[in-house]
Amino acid sequence: MGGDYQREPQQFFQQMPLAKQQAFLQHLRSEYRQILLTYFTKDITATEKINNFINISFQSNLPIPKIIEMHMELIDEFSKQLKLEGRNDDVLLDYRLVLIDVLAHLCETYRTATKQ
Amino acid sequence: MGGDYQREPQQFFQQMPLAKQQAFLQHLRSEYRQILLTYFTKDITATEKINNFINISFQSNLPIPKIIEMHMELIDEFSKQLKLEGRNDDVLLDYRLVLIDVLAHLCETYRTATKQ
Repeated sequence: MGGDYQREPQQFFQQMPLAKQQAFLQHLRSEYRQILLTYFTKDITATEKINNFINISFQSNLPIPKIIEMHMELIDEFSKQLKLEGRNDDVLLDYRLVLIDVLAHLCETYRTATKQ
Repeated sequence: MGGDYQREPQQFFQQMPLAKQQAFLQHLRSEYRQILLTYFTKDITATEKINNFINISFQSNLPIPKIIEMHMELIDEFSKQLKLEGRNDDVLLDYRLVLIDVLAHLCETYRTATKQ
């Protein structure tokens, strides 16, 4: 992120036409999905993926509830899949740590960008 | 919080003398402790407690890692207590939801206060 807190309001989520908003959320959701799936692995790109997600969220001024929705939808999807496979979904509780990590870093990014 | 995003930099955590910082963190920790203990109850002041905590954190420009530390210290403390009482500490996993709630609202407060 390199301390570059300049944003372009014309790239804000709020300025996108509805179709672009949906495509944008769809893309970000697949990025977040990859973060969840690699967070507890030894994937060396995991941190890079999180930084990238935080950067996109910040640059687009994405409302935080959109991130929470995204997380909950993916957890629902994973939960259904695990149940279909007859597996316990306790493991999904750990994914809350990923959301905490993402929110904490995003919040710190906004805090540092808030002048007063 | 009422959309009042004006802050006084002289009230920032970073400007406090070390002793005041410690007293401030001590106070905020006891507030957060009360939030954890009432979050899943029917305490009607639970939401007010959270709003108050978010407002203080924002007004003091408190670094987000301080909140994470506070949460982890309290969970450790609760965990030790439950073990002493011979009780299972699985319930503590639910407290992550409280931290998610706090971070999401604080992050949204900073986002709305970030002009560009």
